[in-house]
Amino acid sequence: MKTPVAVVGATGIAGQQVLAALDGHPMFEVAALAASERSAGRNFEEAITDPSSGMRRWYVESAEPNRDVLRLEVQDARSLRLNDAKIVFAAVESDAARELEPLYARHVPTISTARPFRMEPDVPLVIPGVNLDHLGLVREQQRRRGWQGYIATLPNCTATGLAITLKALDLRFGLESAVVTTMQGISGAGRDLPALDIVENIIPYIPREEDRVKIETCKILGALGNGTIDELPLKISATCTRASVLAGHTEAVAVGLKRPATVDETTAAFEDFGREFTALGLPNAPQRMITVHRNPMRPQPRLDRDAERGMTTSVGRIRPDEVLPNGIKYLLVSHNAAMGAGRGAVLLAEYLLRFGLAG
Amino acid sequence: MKTPVAVVGATGIAGQQVLAALDGHPMFEVAALAASERSAGRNFEEAITDPSSGMRRWYVESAEPNRDVLRLEVQDARSLRLNDAKIVFAAVESDAARELEPLYARHVPTISTARPFRMEPDVPLVIPGVNLDHLGLVREQQRRRGWQGYIATLPNCTATGLAITLKALDLRFGLESAVVTTMQGISGAGRDLPALDIVENIIPYIPREEDRVKIETCKILGALGNGTIDELPLKISATCTRASVLAGHTEAVAVGLKRPATVDETTAAFEDFGREFTALGLPNAPQRMITVHRNPMRPQPRLDRDAERGMTTSVGRIRPDEVLPNGIKYLLVSHNAAMGAGRGAVLLAEYLLRFGLAG
Amino acid sequence: MKTPVAVVGATGIAGQQVLAALDGHPMFEVAALAASERSAGRNFEEAITDPSSGMRRWYVESAEPNRDVLRLEVQDARSLRLNDAKIVFAAVESDAARELEPLYARHVPTISTARPFRMEPDVPLVIPGVNLDHLGLVREQQRRRGWQGYIATLPNCTATGLAITLKALDLRFGLESAVVTTMQGISGAGRDLPALDIVENIIPYIPREEDRVKIETCKILGALGNGTIDELPLKISATCTRASVLAGHTEAVAVGLKRPATVDETTAAFEDFGREFTALGLPNAPQRMITVHRNPMRPQPRLDRDAERGMTTSVGRIRPDEVLPNGIKYLLVSHNAAMGAGRGAVLLAEYLLRFGLAG
Amino acid sequence: MKTPVAVVGATGIAGQQVLAALDGHPMFEVAALAASERSAGRNFEEAITDPSSGMRRWYVESAEPNRDVLRLEVQDARSLRLNDAKIVFAAVESDAARELEPLYARHVPTISTARPFRMEPDVPLVIPGVNLDHLGLVREQQRRRGWQGYIATLPNCTATGLAITLKALDLRFGLESAVVTTMQGISGAGRDLPALDIVENIIPYIPREEDRVKIETCKILGALGNGTIDELPLKISATCTRASVLAGHTEAVAVGLKRPATVDETTAAFEDFGREFTALGLPNAPQRMITVHRNPMRPQPRLDRDAERGMTTSVGRIRPDEVLPNGIKYLLVSHNAAMGAGRGAVLLAEYLLRFGLAG
Repeated sequence: MKTPVAVVGATGIAGQQVLAALDGHPMFEVAALAASERSAGRNFEEAITDPSSGMRRWYVESAEPNRDVLRLEVQDARSLRLNDAKIVFAAVESDAARELEPLYARHVPTISTARPFRMEPDVPLVIPGVNLDHLGLVREQQRRRGWQGYIATLPNCTATGLAITLKALDLRFGLESAVVTTMQGISGAGRDLPALDIVENIIPYIPREEDRVKIETCKILGALGNGTIDELPLKISATCTRASVLAGHTEAVAVGLKRPATVDETTAAFEDFGREFTALGLPNAPQRMITVHRNPMRPQPRLDRDAERGMTTSVGRIRPDEVLPNGIKYLLVSHNAAMGAGRGAVLLAEYLLRFGLAG
Repeated sequence: MKTPVAVVGATGIAGQQVLAALDGHPMFEVAALAASERSAGRNFEEAITDPSSGMRRWYVESAEPNRDVLRLEVQDARSLRLNDAKIVFAAVESDAARELEPLYARHVPTISTARPFRMEPDVPLVIPGVNLDHLGLVREQQRRRGWQGYIATLPNCTATGLAITLKALDLRFGLESAVVTTMQGISGAGRDLPALDIVENIIPYIPREEDRVKIETCKILGALGNGTIDELPLKISATCTRASVLAGHTEAVAVGLKRPATVDETTAAFEDFGREFTALGLPNAPQRMITVHRNPMRPQPRLDRDAERGMTTSVGRIRPDEVLPNGIKYLLVSHNAAMGAGRGAVLLAEYLLRFGLAG
Repeated sequence: MKTPVAVVGATGIAGQQVLAALDGHPMFEVAALAASERSAGRNFEEAITDPSSGMRRWYVESAEPNRDVLRLEVQDARSLRLNDAKIVFAAVESDAARELEPLYARHVPTISTARPFRMEPDVPLVIPGVNLDHLGLVREQQRRRGWQGYIATLPNCTATGLAITLKALDLRFGLESAVVTTMQGISGAGRDLPALDIVENIIPYIPREEDRVKIETCKILGALGNGTIDELPLKISATCTRASVLAGHTEAVAVGLKRPATVDETTAAFEDFGREFTALGLPNAPQRMITVHRNPMRPQPRLDRDAERGMTTSVGRIRPDEVLPNGIKYLLVSHNAAMGAGRGAVLLAEYLLRFGLAG
Repeated sequence: MKTPVAVVGATGIAGQQVLAALDGHPMFEVAALAASERSAGRNFEEAITDPSSGMRRWYVESAEPNRDVLRLEVQDARSLRLNDAKIVFAAVESDAARELEPLYARHVPTISTARPFRMEPDVPLVIPGVNLDHLGLVREQQRRRGWQGYIATLPNCTATGLAITLKALDLRFGLESAVVTTMQGISGAGRDLPALDIVENIIPYIPREEDRVKIETCKILGALGNGTIDELPLKISATCTRASVLAGHTEAVAVGLKRPATVDETTAAFEDFGREFTALGLPNAPQRMITVHRNPMRPQPRLDRDAERGMTTSVGRIRPDEVLPNGIKYLLVSHNAAMGAGRGAVLLAEYLLRFGLAG
């Protein structure tokens, strides 16, 4: 018996990534779909089919939509009947998320890929394998808000790979500071980025991204206190750029540690990280949270973004940093549309179900 | 009466960039050409024409070779007759440079774009408008080596934009440290970079580049002491990557200053920099050494690399840095094949001639 | 004394290309600007400045907007006061063009880059240097419609390079058929083409493009009859694709001729074409309508699209075709945003003024 | 018991594609490896490891080399001991192929991806599922040459997709003529194509490619006569260009048929093609030789090249052609490095083994 789930935002890119990660899933089945009023009342196939051209607006290049899902009715997200769904995946824009997610969380656990609730003090901002203990916040959230369910959020895709690697270092050496320069893939900007802007080019600015990376990373790395998160007092300097790469965020990171670490010790910290979590064997979990490359020509976004279905963070070029005290630097590649999006949300749901936090 | 000059390495990319910058030049005329033994004895047109296909190997996309130059004989670089040339432009590979440049420097000033002599204590490593006072070294060089001419070198193209902007900040605020991440254009790798490696990708490593950036920048920013350069004791952390951009190096720079500076003061330091030099009105000098963009979406390599024929360094996104003490950060775009290569070499020659150091 | 002109659609890409081609023009000055109601009442600088970010929406990468033009008031296109403008450049979307162009043409010659009137029997569809005799239609148009001015249209940018080269062949050898496959640049799709769709890819279909190429080409190549155009009965097979190239349309063309032609005769037909027109020395005219490359590696869009400021059509690889009777084939590169758009419109205006058809 | 095979050219791209297709193969195991004298005597891992950097020269991005194969000794291709290998895959350059392939074919069936023997009258040039009956030539080949084995060749990767689709049409409607324009992927040029040439560009010429497409296609489509192939008297006009696409050849094809065909009939001819072959269920065979897309936006090389592991030919935009008699046109995408290379060679071997032509 699979656990029924609902997917809100099913006609958009983020929602379709969730649907693709749920296709053939051993634990979940899609019981309800929702989108904006415009799509409501039609089945999913009709809802994503352009009426004039007959073409489907399905954005996950590596997969086709599931046949059963194509026949499901798309409901109006504002009046979603849950059909016994035990978890809601809310993959909608910020404004919609602010309004819709409390409607669902009143009843069932709601996993959000959107921004509005990420920094609320009683809402966990989690990366599977990194800070699942923050889910302890949901009791406080339920108490304060009088909800039976809760909202659990996933971070900005650029913060994801950074926070995973920083957590590995913080656990073993302690963190003082981080300087990060990102070269982000096009898919992170969705379908709004005109080809004219990015072909054979670099765009030096992504509005609001640097602030999000800073504040979200500090919350993720924080400690669960008494019904709240004590953010890690980490100084972060971020420069976020867009590169002419389809998917995968590349990040050049320099960190200042509390205690000195050699390259070998840093490598071991990365390779050892997250073993307890990966040992759970959840369906969408990677074998290794972090994959370390010895070849200095790696990681490359085109070659490494899809490693372990985009769920591992690939790290390379570990070496001492000349400027930061106890400095170490490295590059990472993280798949923005996998661990940092729909598949990461499904992995979180797998954990919730396994440990009785949902279902 | 124009001053005759010689160009060595005329069949290669770097030499052809020098030739393009000399085309129609008001002060110089090309009096002699040289290349490897293989090309010697033919005129330039024959030397760059593929015998089987009849196609020319001319690599400067924006220009055609000069008609008079096409008729010049290509000499063997090892036995170059100078034909009264008063300056030699040596644009050859490292191994050839080590052997050939002393042959010419024995007689005349030799401007080198190659690496071997850059870090020699008696050889100036100069960027026009930045550290031309280092040319004071040439007396010592002539004395030590018994040469009538001398070697003056230009830096690695990645160090060029970095050193220009750092110099502006050092003059006004003093420098403690710099963390730089580069996203370098393909043309910096020449014709050896396979398309298969870089299309829709980022390469995280450029062999030896990070070390060169560090040591060359410290020399350029150093002070001319008694017959030598006292390198600036600046801590530099560099990560050099290759991006899918045809030309132009983009660099994300964070600097720690000796004295605090606001964004406005930093902007003024950049905009005021090099005025005395640009006021000389040398033919290939830019109007401004540094062009500051207020639009956070700039500089972009495709839009800004060709500003002022590639001779200005474009800077944007000036803002405080959260990690480095008295930290400021910014991005820059520098044309690797203009100020950082052939056209920069010709600009240096213009200065040498104007101030009696050659001719 | 320059002739005053008006530019409608000044806030869009096409209108801005017209403005860029008019900047510093020896014959014209911009006397009036218009756009949609939304922009009306503000000066051009305000109209193109994003109020939240302060950034300008100016889309012509190679030029900055003219300072005098920045201060001009933008009028509502529906109630444009002409301010003595003697020519209107209408560079607007199809729906707007259908409504607006007759308003202006009632009073003054109106040059349109839009589609709605192209195929009207009394409206000339012209390419400067190809079929300017079609302007003879305007008398009929004025008579029928009771206008003092008239509408003259420019073709689809993909038809432009094709029609130029076919006309050269038709004049000398006669045409029976043409099979064309295009690889079109991104800028032809404007800012609507998502980077996700085209990076490292080819899109095999451009809606409606193939039909336009066919019908417009036959009209352009037609003969001016008695108040109408007798379309050339040319069979055209077109396949239009989008390539990962920023600008420039590349077209592989095979033609069946009425009379056999050798490669040399074809080359001569191309090189001789349009001499009378180019001899007029109009400011935006190319030196040669068609530039023939002997190097089989040319033309390439990146290297050749900007030849003669994008106003020449570059042709190469002329050779016999194995399938079509009296067949010849070749490739061409044509700059879709120059001769095929704003600069072509200005060149047409130059001709109208010189020959008393406007002003 | 798997059948032992040998792979010659194991250190090159083509040979490594064969090795990747053989990895985990149910019928074959790699018993011998060979390469040039330079690599001989070392094991495969040493042979592909750069001694200075320690990096592996392994070019198949989607796979890692098999561990057992890494330990195999690389022999000198000129003195290959077959170690009981029953089939040799010869994946070497033309010059080497001319010399080496007869050495192996003297003893065992030799499958060649190289050019030299393709057009020999007694050598079959085959595409699995298209003209396997041409293997009937090998008896004649053995008789004439006195060999126990034989050479069977695979065509140029650009001819592959063309010939597959033309064969489907020839079987049902008969063929008169074909006009093809290709937009070929970068990987077809191997690692020799400089990024500087192709980024944001189209190269209009691929030396010798058009002739190969013509002659090889006519041979593949020919009929097996009495110990020779009667080439199909098909007029083919080919224009071969290189596009900025990593892999996958896109081809726009117009064909003139002997008998008229509607779009639906053409679609059926494509979809029905090769059923007997695919029904054999050979491990590397596709489910369908040709996959027809109804969505006019498909096929696209990035989205469709990997369909069925690159072994199906994706076709779309089937429509009447306006120029050719009984004309039909379409676009296709074929993976140049799969059916057109290593994996196609392994599929051929599977057929040879199944039908007793090898083993």
